[in-house]
Parts: sequence; C-alpha cells; structure tokens
Amino acid sequence: MNTLGKYIRLTTFGESHGPAMGGILDGMPSRVQIDADRVQSELDRRAPGRVALTSARREPDKIEILSGISAEGLTLGSPIGFIIRNRDARSADYSAYEGKFRPNHADYTYHEKYGIHDFRGGGRASARETVSWVAAGAICRQWLETYGIKVEARLIETNNIGEIAAKGDSTGAIVDGMITGLPVGIGEPVFDKLSARLAQAMMSINAAKAFEYGDGTAAADAIGSEVQDKPFIDPQDGKVRFKTNHSGGIQGGISNGMPVNFKVYFKPTPTIMQPMDTIDTSGCEVTIDPRGRHDPCVAVRAVPVVEAMAILTVSDLLRYAL
Amino acid sequence: MNTLGKYIRLTTFGESHGPAMGGILDGMPSRVQIDADRVQSELDRRAPGRVALTSARREPDKIEILSGISAEGLTLGSPIGFIIRNRDARSADYSAYEGKFRPNHADYTYHEKYGIHDFRGGGRASARETVSWVAAGAICRQWLETYGIKVEARLIETNNIGEIAAKGDSTGAIVDGMITGLPVGIGEPVFDKLSARLAQAMMSINAAKAFEYGDGTAAADAIGSEVQDKPFIDPQDGKVRFKTNHSGGIQGGISNGMPVNFKVYFKPTPTIMQPMDTIDTSGCEVTIDPRGRHDPCVAVRAVPVVEAMAILTVSDLLRYAL
Amino acid sequence: MNTLGKYIRLTTFGESHGPAMGGILDGMPSRVQIDADRVQSELDRRAPGRVALTSARREPDKIEILSGISAEGLTLGSPIGFIIRNRDARSADYSAYEGKFRPNHADYTYHEKYGIHDFRGGGRASARETVSWVAAGAICRQWLETYGIKVEARLIETNNIGEIAAKGDSTGAIVDGMITGLPVGIGEPVFDKLSARLAQAMMSINAAKAFEYGDGTAAADAIGSEVQDKPFIDPQDGKVRFKTNHSGGIQGGISNGMPVNFKVYFKPTPTIMQPMDTIDTSGCEVTIDPRGRHDPCVAVRAVPVVEAMAILTVSDLLRYAL
Amino acid sequence: MNTLGKYIRLTTFGESHGPAMGGILDGMPSRVQIDADRVQSELDRRAPGRVALTSARREPDKIEILSGISAEGLTLGSPIGFIIRNRDARSADYSAYEGKFRPNHADYTYHEKYGIHDFRGGGRASARETVSWVAAGAICRQWLETYGIKVEARLIETNNIGEIAAKGDSTGAIVDGMITGLPVGIGEPVFDKLSARLAQAMMSINAAKAFEYGDGTAAADAIGSEVQDKPFIDPQDGKVRFKTNHSGGIQGGISNGMPVNFKVYFKPTPTIMQPMDTIDTSGCEVTIDPRGRHDPCVAVRAVPVVEAMAILTVSDLLRYAL
Repeated sequence: MNTLGKYIRLTTFGESHGPAMGGILDGMPSRVQIDADRVQSELDRRAPGRVALTSARREPDKIEILSGISAEGLTLGSPIGFIIRNRDARSADYSAYEGKFRPNHADYTYHEKYGIHDFRGGGRASARETVSWVAAGAICRQWLETYGIKVEARLIETNNIGEIAAKGDSTGAIVDGMITGLPVGIGEPVFDKLSARLAQAMMSINAAKAFEYGDGTAAADAIGSEVQDKPFIDPQDGKVRFKTNHSGGIQGGISNGMPVNFKVYFKPTPTIMQPMDTIDTSGCEVTIDPRGRHDPCVAVRAVPVVEAMAILTVSDLLRYAL
Repeated sequence: MNTLGKYIRLTTFGESHGPAMGGILDGMPSRVQIDADRVQSELDRRAPGRVALTSARREPDKIEILSGISAEGLTLGSPIGFIIRNRDARSADYSAYEGKFRPNHADYTYHEKYGIHDFRGGGRASARETVSWVAAGAICRQWLETYGIKVEARLIETNNIGEIAAKGDSTGAIVDGMITGLPVGIGEPVFDKLSARLAQAMMSINAAKAFEYGDGTAAADAIGSEVQDKPFIDPQDGKVRFKTNHSGGIQGGISNGMPVNFKVYFKPTPTIMQPMDTIDTSGCEVTIDPRGRHDPCVAVRAVPVVEAMAILTVSDLLRYAL
Repeated sequence: MNTLGKYIRLTTFGESHGPAMGGILDGMPSRVQIDADRVQSELDRRAPGRVALTSARREPDKIEILSGISAEGLTLGSPIGFIIRNRDARSADYSAYEGKFRPNHADYTYHEKYGIHDFRGGGRASARETVSWVAAGAICRQWLETYGIKVEARLIETNNIGEIAAKGDSTGAIVDGMITGLPVGIGEPVFDKLSARLAQAMMSINAAKAFEYGDGTAAADAIGSEVQDKPFIDPQDGKVRFKTNHSGGIQGGISNGMPVNFKVYFKPTPTIMQPMDTIDTSGCEVTIDPRGRHDPCVAVRAVPVVEAMAILTVSDLLRYAL
Repeated sequence: MNTLGKYIRLTTFGESHGPAMGGILDGMPSRVQIDADRVQSELDRRAPGRVALTSARREPDKIEILSGISAEGLTLGSPIGFIIRNRDARSADYSAYEGKFRPNHADYTYHEKYGIHDFRGGGRASARETVSWVAAGAICRQWLETYGIKVEARLIETNNIGEIAAKGDSTGAIVDGMITGLPVGIGEPVFDKLSARLAQAMMSINAAKAFEYGDGTAAADAIGSEVQDKPFIDPQDGKVRFKTNHSGGIQGGISNGMPVNFKVYFKPTPTIMQPMDTIDTSGCEVTIDPRGRHDPCVAVRAVPVVEAMAILTVSDLLRYAL
C-alpha cells in the first residue's frame, strides 16, 4: 500500500508518465517552521541531469505545497499536501518497450498483478516515485533539526561507474547512511524497532537488495567477546556513551544515543543501453533495443532517497516516543 | 508496537519472567483445517534444550489455544488467542545482573526508555518472545500449504559453534530462508513490497543485523548485463519462468513466481560466559560474572523464527492480494 | 487523523482558503471502469450555489485526477490522486472574524489545539473539506455499482428552511440514507462492524450530532416480542429474507441482505446572519457581525456527503470481505 | 477486525463457550500505577447475576493479568495481556438453538459470513466479549484518573423492566454517558474526531442502535440562534468556559473543556422467553422454545461497557494528543 509510517504518515500517488506525482504528509506537529526553498533544493539535488553520471532527463521537479503550511511557513498541524508535475514525459522514447518485459524490472509482475501496466516508463514502479519521498523528507528534516537530529548519506562506489556507462552497461553500488543526534529511546518493540522500520523503509527503495546496520553482515562472523560495546560515563557531560559502536546505535531495536549507521546495497540499473532478450505479453521471444534515458547506476540518485527514508522513519518513531 | 501485519495480524504480549507469553492472530479466513499437534511440534522444535548447541533451559512450551478454532480444528474466522506459560523462570540465576547493563543487550535502552526494566531475563526484550511468533507461524503455515506455499530456513554456520561454546564465548551466524510455491503477484507497492515487509519482519528478530534477498549485497558489485533474469515460457506448463534468479523471486516488490530466497545475518549472543565490564544504573563501573543459561549462537534457535516471520509476512500479503 | 478506512483508504488534505483541496484514494482494485464526468457531476451536485437554499459562493469545483486511472478510464490498482482548486476565496469577507471564536464552531478548539488557526474560513475545519470525500465517493460508487450496490440519501426537513433563512437564522435537519444491493456478510466483528464504521463515518461529517440505523432511537422504547425480524425463504429466488427490517439490514454488525437504512441528525449552521456575542483570543468580549456566505441549513449540502461516506465505508468493508 | 484504537490499542479474542476470553492492551505508557483489585471490581460490577434484573448466569469472571504490569503494579510500557476463563458454559441449555437462526441475532449473518457458527451461545457475537473491554477499560481508567478525567454512565429506563421480564419479554433502554475533566484539544480531525470515534466505539456494543452527543437528535429541530454556546472567561480560574453545552463538549471534533455527554440507545434483548418463529440453516420453518439465561434488558449490563468504551476511546486520543 502507499502509506509509510503510523504517526507521521506519508501517503503518495503518481505514475511516471501521468500528470503529476504527489503526497500527503500527515501527523506533523503544528508551528514547525518550514523553509519551502530548502524543500525545493532537496528536489533539485535529487533531480536527474543535475547529478553527474545520471540520465539526461531534465525535469524542473517544482514542488507545489497545497496545504498544511501557513503563508508564514508554519505547519498548521493539518496534512501537508503537495504535488510535483511531470513535465517532460516524451513517451515516444519508450515505444520500443510496449508489451515487452524488461529483465529485472517490474514489468512482468505489475502486468500479472494488475492486468494493466504502462510499459513506457514503469508507471507506479518507476523511481520517479521517490521524488515525493524526498519532498516529504525535506519537510520532516527541518523538524528533526529542531531536536539536533541529522541524517546524511553518501555513495560508496564499488565499480567505476564512468567506465561502465561508456559501454552502455550498468553497475550496483552501496549507499551508506548515518543518523546523528538521535536521543536514547527511539524505536518501539517488538515489531516497530528502529532497525526493523529502517529496513522496511530502505528495502522500499527501487533496486535495493540488502540492508545492514552496525556490524551488519560482518556480525555473522564475529566472536561475542570481541564486539562488546562497553558503556561508560562520558566525563564531559556525565552521559552514558559506548566505547565502540558495533551495535550501530541500536540495542533491542531502540536507539542508544550513539550514531545510527547503516548501509543499503543497490543492484545495477536493470535497463542497459544494449539489446536485451526477453519475451512479450503474448509469450513471444523479443529483443528490446533500449532508448531513452537511463542511469548507469541507480544508487547515485538513491543517495537523497536513502536520507529521506531515514528521516521519515525517525520522524514517525520520534513523534510516537515524545 | 506489538502488532505485525495489516490483514492477518499477530499481536503479542509477554515478558520472559512473567506468567506467560501469548498472542492473538487476527484475520485468518474461516474453515481452514488446523492441526494443533503440528503447532506444538513447531514449538518443540524451537524449544531450548531440545536443539543441540542451545542453552539448557528446558521449558515445556505447551501452547494453549483459547479461541478461534473449533473442536474439529477448523478456524472460525474469529481471532485465535493463545498462551504459553513460563514455567521455568529460576530468577535466582539472574541476580548477578540486577541493575547492570549487559553490553550489546537491550538493558540500557529499555531502562532509559521505560524507566523500569527487568534485568533478570530481559523482560520483553528476551528472545523468549519469539515463541509466540513461532506458534502463530505454525498456524498460518497450514493455511499457506493449502496454496502449495512452503517456507524453509536453515543455519549457515560461519564459525565452529562447538569450539566457541567450549570457551564460554559466542558467535554470529547466518540463517538462509526460502519460500517456494508463491504465486505471482504477492507484495503491495510502494511501501508494502514483499522485500520491504520481509526485511522488517526479519530485522524484528533479536540479534538480526542484516537482511538481503536475491543477489543481496553482491548486487552492489554486479554489472547490469551479467545479472539479467531472462523470462521464458516453460514448455512444460506454458507458464512464464526465469532462466536465472538474481532477483530472488521479487521484482518491483512483487513475487514473480520464482523461489524467494533471502538471508538474515545474526550477531553473536551478547551474553557470554566470561566476565564482562560495564556500568550499572548509577553509572558505576561493574563487572558481570554471568550465570544462567545462554546460547553460544543465537542464530541456531532463530531458524524456526525466521520461518515463522516469513510465513506471517507472506500470509498477510497473500490475504490482501487474494 | 486524515485517513478513512483500512483496505480502501481515503487520505485528504486542504484548508478552506488554501490553494487546493485533495485526496488520495488507495486500495481500489485495478481495471474498474471510471467515468470522470460522473465524478465531476457529483461535485457539481454538492457545489454551493447550485443547490437551492445554500450559500451563494460559486466555486467551479473542477476535479483534476492526477494518477491511478488510465487514459481509457480504467483504474490501474495504484493510488488515485486528485485535487480541486480553491478559486473563490474572497478572504476580505471574513475579516470580521479575525481572532474571534464563532460560537459552536471549531475556532476555539483548533486555536487551542494547534496554536495557529485560520479564522477566515475555518481552515481544515471547514465543510469545504467534504468536496474530497464526495470526489472519492463518486469514484467508489462506480465500483460498487458493478456489484449492484446503490447508495442514496435525502433530506428530511424538520423546520421550514426558507422561512428561517429569511430571518438570517439557521436550522438543523435530518439526512436519511439507504444502501441497497449489499450482499450478506459485509462488516467485520467486533470493532469494524458495518454499523460502527457507518457511525464513525457519519459523525465525521461537520455538524452531525446523532446517528441511528434500523429502529434507531425508537429501539430503546421497543418491546422484544414486537420487533422480531423473522427470516423466511423468498419463493422467488430461494434466498433468505426477513419479513420486517427493524434491524436496518445489519445483525451482529454484519449486513444481512436487507436494505441498510440509517439517519444522520445535523445541528443548525453555527454561523447565522445576526450579531453573535463571543470572546476573542485575548479573552475580551466581542460581537461578530457576520458577513460572507452561509447556508441556513448545513444538512442540505450534507446529502451527497452522507452518500459519499456510506459509499467509502461500504467499499472498504467489501474490499476486505471479498 | 478485533483491534480498537490506534495508539492505545485493545485487541481481543474469545468465544462465549470457548475456554477463555481475553485481550492485549498495547501502547500504555510505562510507570502508571494499576490496582488489579479495581480491575476485578469492575468485572464484578459487570458480571451477570450480580446486577438486579440480569440473567442468572454466575461466572466468577476472574481476570488473570499475564504481562505488562510489574509485581508492584506499575505498567512496564509493554503490552498488557489478560485472560478471563469461561467456567460456566452449560452448553446443554442451548441445544434448543442448534442450526436455528434466532431473530434479530447474529446467527444468520455469522453463519453466512463464516460458514461455521456456534449456535449455542453466539460464539464471538456474544455480549460475553465485552468482559475484555471492561477489563481493559478498568486499566485505562486508572491512567485517565491521573489527569483528572472521569467517565460515568447510567441507565435511563424507558419501559418498566421488571414488568416486562415477568412476561418473558424484553425491552430496550438508553445508557447516558458523561466524560468530565477532559482537557481541551482531544480528538483528531478529520476522521478521528472525538465524536466520530466515540460513535464507532459505542456502535460496536452489542444491541446499540443509535448514538448521539450534545443536543443529539434534538439538534435537527433546533434554531441556530437558540443553541449558541457562548464562551466566556471563568473569573474563578481565568479559563474559557461556555454558558451552555449544546455542543456536548466537542466542537469541530475536538474537546472544548466542557463535559462530554452522550447517549447510546439499545434495542431489546433479541432472545425472549417466549416461542420464536424462524427458519433453520436448511431453510425449514422452525420454532425456538428458548431456555437458558437471558437478560430482559441488555442495556442494564451495557452500562459498564459504555464506560469502558468511552475510556478506551479517550485514552487512545489522549495518548496521541499528549
């Protein structure tokens, strides 16, 4: 379904080649100062064509906030509705795809599940959807900042993206995320643990294949006596801190005051600029000769999306714990 | 919070050293045949002391089903309430822990969040909670079987558990899960994708640090042209299948008819049979000299829990998609 | 919060004097034929200035559907996003209200709860919000019709509205609703009974003060032996029907195949065209000399809203029971 | 479904003639002092056979709290699980009902919806279910009291119950509820208004046919100028109060600090001690010759249930608004 969160809830809509994307952010406290320009800048940061190594499509991605924020920029406590028009659809580019299942893409599953699918740009399955997540995240970020909470992500390149792009191929990569300033006590046992909710949020992102936090996959090889995060009283402020952070800032699903660090692993962009063998909706073998705009590495544009999803998750759980 | 799922929902309660654990499984269709003996066997399979290499605590873990199933074993369509008594608490074993934060455990975060915490056995943070998940999973499994859906997990040992146990230390390990027979179309974009919901469920399990499906973390190193799952028509039954399964049976968050395979990475059991330096609730440095029963590798007993969580997740999404 | 329903969910946003109202209807099955013109006609039917005895404000209330429906009018199974621009705000009319709590209105409670309130037109508390409910209802109605389910409401005038309007006063009234064609089995015990969910939906409508179904308030005076709905086999089709319908089509919270009939009681429009004594936000006694446009009887325009809310409730529960 | 509320959530289970009723109350803050004896007293107050004019069935209704409360009576912040055993089933009394649809009862709708139904005592449709609501309400009441919030209900007799009981007949009645001490600001627009959520909760009670608050049904006859609740500053404490309370303490769906008063209208107990004509599951005309224990007026025992449902509703919304 299309709602994320329980207390601060984002509900979204929009197909890649429809008139607009958009969402409703419900549950924000009232009287939080929101700078709409900063929301716009985060969309600009995500926009294709503005990031090196991303596809050439150049959408203005201009957000229009329709409710929930006063003329003075204060939240009203009412739901914040917003839309971002799709202006640069150029459907013609996609005619080569009609009725053909792109490998590793959602075409087949959407076609089977819904009995109706837009093969042009993926419809609801398109990564364009994440523009609404980034918009909502940019709003919530300003609320989190009032608590001193910061969320940052960065790309960890695994292969040389430029080289691979030159061949019309694609590659996976890793996005590393970090949440700092989170107070102790965020996360709700036993099914809304901070770790579990972060995992769900991150694995909602297109092309995400793995999530880990703290020691992550390496924890499976670890020896108990070697990875103990020993607590101590920080003489500077008398607060409890930990000498190491194997736990990744989360113990028992609840933040422990240390930075929350996590990684999201992304697969290569499914569509590459090389002929792809597949079948079409009638089961015939066909070849797709790809055109249009495609990122050689979907993870590049996922960086602000990872931030947004972490922000939304933390906001939701913070709102509940307050 | 303590409810998993939206359509088939499991709500649980219970502290490790309280009178009982239990849950309510709501949303099951009526007239599904449930064999209560099979539910009991799954609990037996999970029980400590019955699995080699797990702690010696020997709870009968006898389930009492209190509602929702007729005398003839048919579901009534009403919520299925059940309890499992805690019989073998032996609190004395835990006196060494009173007021001391075990490293990497939930003691500190629970103590801070709730202002009240049972240091004896972890209270709500104890892995004992998973007995209710296994019980509910064992009920839902019988429903999934009527659709030919099977869920299996197995341990992948990373270090030699016996050797480590002998030293009073602990180790992490991996649990590998597989869902077969799942029809195409299970999973709900964009926030209840099968992958996202599996991730949430798995990361809810005590000591889980990473989740991956399909190519998982390896996808970040992959080259797009080398990991395409090409669809074809299976001549045996005329159905669409895929030549490879890098996608792990999920595309666009929706099952594609191929086996869904995933891995969960577990950290070492936090409590080891060696002295552990830490602080207590008043900030004093103390040493815990552990007693009681502890598993050298928490992942061993997590195997049936991983199965149960996969079953509950699939059941919920299947119920919605039907 | 701003979401109605669990399986077919409507989430809305918008303030009376903001740029737009709108909503997201999530959970609709795919491939349902939707006639957008019929959606527009239902908005026209609700619109002020088009109904006799309602205020003169004349908004075009043009709906713009932004997602979820194909060019051919088929639902895609994805969320249906829509907006309705607010074009005719004329805030000047409302200057008389600034900072003054209109009696029986939401001014005081919103001001206290949110610490920020738009006194011009009520902001989120305005009945303008219901335009989104009517829009969503008009979409779902077309789905319900494929099952032969019809929902109709009508006004029961209690006082002579024209006479009262002439005095600048206002009056309450009753809206009577009827759902026909509903199959047996709709409604989910014990907290999502059809009766309970209808009650919640109706009492969400601005100015609603009472809800009843079947015998309603009269049931409290009834004698058991005189109100038994006796079932019989209808010789025409061999189906079970009931000789009377004291139950109002609902037994144990579940539809029994008879028409579901209910009533919603509305209070008089709070704002009247006469001076009103009250206090302002600083506690000073003030008089409001009302201007602007006001309905003498809010129930008149509530008729299509009652229909919409019944449709949304039935759609949600039908989707679950299917 | 079987969960009430969003933030403080009660999930229940149990069939009238099964082993036990019970529930899980999730979301309670930690460190609230709970007197278990007071919970038991509220169950005693509800119990049949203890109230004049109710059926003779004499269940001990002994609550067993299984989790979520410490030995010292403090909530732990974890879910509170509880069960109440069914001890006095005497199924024999009900053999006269097997396969026969009692008029105005849930037999027909349950039988059709679930395809399996316990005709002995109504199974899940029995009013026995409300024992869990009263138990949970009794816990939450103690939390509300720390805020000075009180909830009381009383019976308004419409017919002479004793006279009607003597004839083996039954009658409806009204339960009047009052919530005092509620702070301003409780209730969440636009779909979780205090009025809407109270309506849902009350209409979930067996045999409830109408709900009203404030002026209620009389509001439909009212003239606007005559029912204005004028605010003023109370000289005693400088707080805003209202000269009258036509609004019933709720404006715009949000509490305004005045007492919240409401009424619930109950139909007569469906089963009377007179022969009842009906049909059975095979469509044959049959007569039920009732035996067993039946209340002449179901509303009598509904009084504590109305209180419990008001408490649970207010607790949920208070928890969110805090």
